[in-house]
Parts: sequence; structure tokens; C-alpha cells
Amino acid sequence: MKETTFAVLGTGGIGRRTLEVSQHKEGLTPVAACDRHGTAIDFDGLDVDELLAATEGNIDSEVATDGGATAAEDGVKQHGENRGVVASEQARPSDDPIQDVIDHGDGIDAVLLALPNYEHDFIPRVADRFLEGGYGGVMVDVLKRSRVIGMLDERTAEFEEAGITFVCGAGATPGLLTGAAALAAQSFVEIEEVEIWWGVGLESGYEDNRGTVREDIAHLPDYDIETARDLSAEEIDAIVDDHDGVIEFEDMEHADDVLLERAGVCDAKDVTVGGLLDVRSDEKPTTTTVSVTGTTFDGETGTNTFQLDDATSMEANVNGPALGYLRAAVRRNRAGEYGVVGPAELMPRF
Amino acid sequence: MKETTFAVLGTGGIGRRTLEVSQHKEGLTPVAACDRHGTAIDFDGLDVDELLAATEGNIDSEVATDGGATAAEDGVKQHGENRGVVASEQARPSDDPIQDVIDHGDGIDAVLLALPNYEHDFIPRVADRFLEGGYGGVMVDVLKRSRVIGMLDERTAEFEEAGITFVCGAGATPGLLTGAAALAAQSFVEIEEVEIWWGVGLESGYEDNRGTVREDIAHLPDYDIETARDLSAEEIDAIVDDHDGVIEFEDMEHADDVLLERAGVCDAKDVTVGGLLDVRSDEKPTTTTVSVTGTTFDGETGTNTFQLDDATSMEANVNGPALGYLRAAVRRNRAGEYGVVGPAELMPRF
Repeated sequence: MKETTFAVLGTGGIGRRTLEVSQHKEGLTPVAACDRHGTAIDFDGLDVDELLAATEGNIDSEVATDGGATAAEDGVKQHGENRGVVASEQARPSDDPIQDVIDHGDGIDAVLLALPNYEHDFIPRVADRFLEGGYGGVMVDVLKRSRVIGMLDERTAEFEEAGITFVCGAGATPGLLTGAAALAAQSFVEIEEVEIWWGVGLESGYEDNRGTVREDIAHLPDYDIETARDLSAEEIDAIVDDHDGVIEFEDMEHADDVLLERAGVCDAKDVTVGGLLDVRSDEKPTTTTVSVTGTTFDGETGTNTFQLDDATSMEANVNGPALGYLRAAVRRNRAGEYGVVGPAELMPRF
Repeated sequence: MKETTFAVLGTGGIGRRTLEVSQHKEGLTPVAACDRHGTAIDFDGLDVDELLAATEGNIDSEVATDGGATAAEDGVKQHGENRGVVASEQARPSDDPIQDVIDHGDGIDAVLLALPNYEHDFIPRVADRFLEGGYGGVMVDVLKRSRVIGMLDERTAEFEEAGITFVCGAGATPGLLTGAAALAAQSFVEIEEVEIWWGVGLESGYEDNRGTVREDIAHLPDYDIETARDLSAEEIDAIVDDHDGVIEFEDMEHADDVLLERAGVCDAKDVTVGGLLDVRSDEKPTTTTVSVTGTTFDGETGTNTFQLDDATSMEANVNGPALGYLRAAVRRNRAGEYGVVGPAELMPRF
């Protein structure tokens, strides 16, 4: 297989681990990484070890509200030259890191969006910037919210014209588990119910993943994406305390539903997503399971299941698939298939 | 989605049920079906109910040894005008049913090969006939034997030139379960072992599936593909009796191994396929399970699993995926992607 070059937007938990996991994959070369502070670009391949070591602990739990330009224009905050990715000797400070990546887009097969996502239109707006910048290639996000898919779908014609293959929801769920549901559905001619139930144990990964925890809190009955965005780190900790460290989520607005409907598997309303997050243990509080119940052509009703071993971390289940979908999408893109594609339509490459 | 037209070669158990299952799928129109006796072609769509009713019980358990031409040339036996598919009022007798389909290939998006396969090069030789006949489109087989994949791979350049997308091993296993293994592998950066273990209960389906049982017997230690081909129906029954109706298969030469290696998931030697066939009960003697054991990027070892409900029949698990892979491949074909593709590389469409 021809070599694939990729960029990571965001060097928080997901961005950093994607770089790390990519080192285990053949033919996959990270050539750019950026955060709000700056950009590292090297078409011979980034030195991932140096970059990860230099940025360790630099997780920025503040909330980004736009994709680039200057602080005055869009509220991206600058914290001095050596914060974030700029602590790496491969990076240089930038007023508009995303534009840096766009400007080098000709040499980048795929862009992974590992950006905080507290505004529904944040990922779509970043996509707009790549469209405006003339980028043609793959874009991959690991978003979760159902309503964002529609916003991306609205851009289908622009993506097709630009030569962009946009993979939405390519993490663990949606992503791997949506794909598993679509596969498990193949035994049936009619789907009754898809139930996605996840367990995450995040004790040692809590600091690195406060952004994810914040996003999850937005799914709780008393919160939404706006109120969660305004929570301080202390308030997040207090919510965690209130739940004795284990938070249960029911009927989450997770894009698995629209992605499965989009793939023709079932109606979005027949999909439920929930789970248990334990931030005081690395053990998963429950086993991540996808259950697909349907009727076979010969009239039997059954439930096919897909289970992730408790030993596989959330990080492993997000970043492996994200890169797998990225690689599969590059193949589609090279074959000239553009537009928006979901994980139920694409087999990730190992 | 644009309508997809397809042909079925073979009206045995798999061919007939594929026609039946296709009635549950939107935008999928069967336009041709043939067996060694004749051909039914209707571009307005075959009347599947009539065809199934007319051919019920007409399962031909004799062994076909080639894809077409006349009996004198290739050993295909003729049994009179009203046997096999010719019992349907939509079909007419033919000396070369496969050529009939090839001659109408311009209107056929995909061809499903549901032919008995007791010679390793049988499917490849049928592919050669479509190549010679100038067919461009999708071909799908539900073959099982590892060594056939290599024969198809040798034809990659010809398929690409002809505009053929050939999906090999698109049934339950390989097929659905290979796909599940490839998906389950995404949590890991290194795969240790893939274990595919199936259970089939085939009491009421035994008569319809003696061809499948014959193929399975070829996997037993004392048999091979040649000796199994020469077994009479009585000898097959005797083997079943010797095993009290339940036959255990270990280390089968099932193409899951080469298909997973081909997709870069693991070495073929790390894949084991086995199962239990019970021909005296419709209950499955064991639960069909795919177990993928590997190491995550963060150093943990775990096993992800995929299980089919015991209530899902072998038929449901073969024919749903076969049509799912067919639909996905038509999309690839229309985008101009040709050559040989395995189920670990392609997400079947629901």
C-alpha cells in the first residue's frame, strides 16, 4: 500500500494518542500536528517520541471556540511561546495553526480532527476552513453528537467538488461500535433494536481526558452542551464527586443513531446509547457491548452481540479505529469517492 | 441508492435463499437465475415466488464439474427440460446457461456465484468465462477454501482491465465472521490469535444443504476435496451416522486465514477455524463466536468477541452478508475500484 501522510489537529488526549498509535501502523506517517499555540510540520515524518515527551502533561482543558485565526478574531487564547505543541522543538508558534496545515494540504492525505467540540458547529466550521483553503483529501472526526452529522451532510456537494472524503464519528462510539452494529445486523432482514452500552474506567487517564469527561457531562439530564462548556475543572470534579466517581449515562445523544439510520440499518429511534464512566478506577465498571436484535428472513428473532474486552482501554478503542477509518477513507478518496461517509459504511483498515 | 440488478448462478440452497432474502432488500432486483438446466432472465425483475415454488425440492445434489457449455464438453449432465430452474415458467432450457447470463451482462450489476465448488479452480474458471465474455461488474462468491483466493488474486490484472470487482468469500465464514474479526482487531496494534468457532444445526435444512455438508466433510481428517466429491448421498448419510449426527471440525482450511492476512490483520497461521455441525437438530450445538486476541498500544492483552445468536440460521448468516457484500461492491465498482476484494476490506451494506 502506498504511504499515507496525515495531520492531527489538536494535541490533547486523542491527538497525542493518535500519534502514538500511528507508530504501530505500517505505511502511515504523521507529518503535521497543531494545537492553538502552534504547528509542527515535517514531511519526512514527525519525531513522535520527541513531540509526545515535550508535550506531556500539556493537556489544555480550556475550551476552544474556533478553529484558528488570531485571538482577537475568534477567541483562541495564546499562553506564550512554549505552551502546548510549541514545547516541542519541531513546532513553531503560529497565529493560525489550522491555516498552516491547510497551506501544506497538498502533501497531506488525511487530517484527523482531535479538537474539543463544545459548539455544535465547531467541526463543520473547521471543515469550511479546509474547503475555503482548497484542501482535497480525507478529513476524519471522532465527534459524538447526532446533530453534527446533518451539518456535515449539508456540505456534501462542496466536499464532492473539493475532493474531500469526510468520515464522521470515527472513534469508539460512534465508530467501532456503530460498525459492529452494522455488521451484526447482516443476519437480519429487519432490525428491532440496537443497544450500545459502554464502560470506561478512567482513573489514571482522568487528567488527560477531562475534555472527554466534560463532553460526557453534557449528556447528563441536568446539563447540555452549553452549560457543560462553562464548567470549571473544579465544577467537573464536583459533579464527579456527586456521583461517587461513577456516572451512568442513559439515552445519550450519540451519533450512532443517525449514522445507522443513514446506512439503512434501522431508524435512529431504535438505537440507544448509554454507559458507565468510572473516573476512580481503571477497571471498566461494565463491559462494552453492542446488541443488535432483529428478525431473520426465516422468521426467527435473535440478538447478535459484539463485546470489547475490559482490558482494552477507551484510548485503544478510539484511536485504533480512528486511524483504521482514516486509512480506509484514503483508499476511497484515491478512488475518487468524495462526500460524507459514516463508520457503518466503511470497513476500517487494520 | 440507484437500483442494483443481480444474477444468481446456481439455484441450490444458497442460490434459492439469496433470491428469497433479496425480496427483503430495497433497491435490489434479481434479473437472472440459472442452473445447469436452463436460465431465467427478466430485466423487469424475476418473479421470485413463482421461481422458488416451481423449483422447491429440486436441489441437485450431483456434482457439477464445470461452468457451462455442453454436456459432451464438460460433463454437465442434462436431465430433461423440466428439471431444475426450467420447472419455472420464467426459465428456458439452455445448453450453456452461464453464457446466457454473460450475454446479458450489460444489464447485470452483480453476479452471485452459488455453484457447487468441488474443484479448487471451479470458481476461478467461471470467472475466466466472464472475463472472456467481456463482462464488467461485480462478481461475488461464497467460497470457503483458502487456496482459491490465490487463484483469484492471479487474475487481478485481468479483473482490473475488464472492470470487474470480485468479492471472494462473502458468506458467513469467511464473510461475516472474517469482517467481524477485522473489526474486532481495531482495538489492538498486534494480533495474537483469531479464533472462529461456528455451530450449525441443520435438521430441517439437511436435504437442501447436502452440498454444504459434502463440502464440510472434505475438511475432515480422513477426507479431502476429491474424495468428498466422489461420495454418494448414502455415503454422506453413513458418515453422518458414524458421528451420531454431530460432526466436529478442527483447523479447517477456511479462507478466513488468507483473507485476514491479505487485509494485514494477522498472519494466516494465527487464524483457526472450527465448528460443530449437528444434522439431527435445528438447535445449534454451540454458539458461533469470533474471538480476536491482541495487544493494545498501551500494552494490555485482551480478547474482543462477536457472537451470533443461536436463533440465527446458517442460511440467514450466509445470505444476508452475501447480498450485503454484493451491494457494497457495486458501489465500489461504480466508483471504478476493480480487482479482488475480501470481506475484511469491505463493510457490507444492510
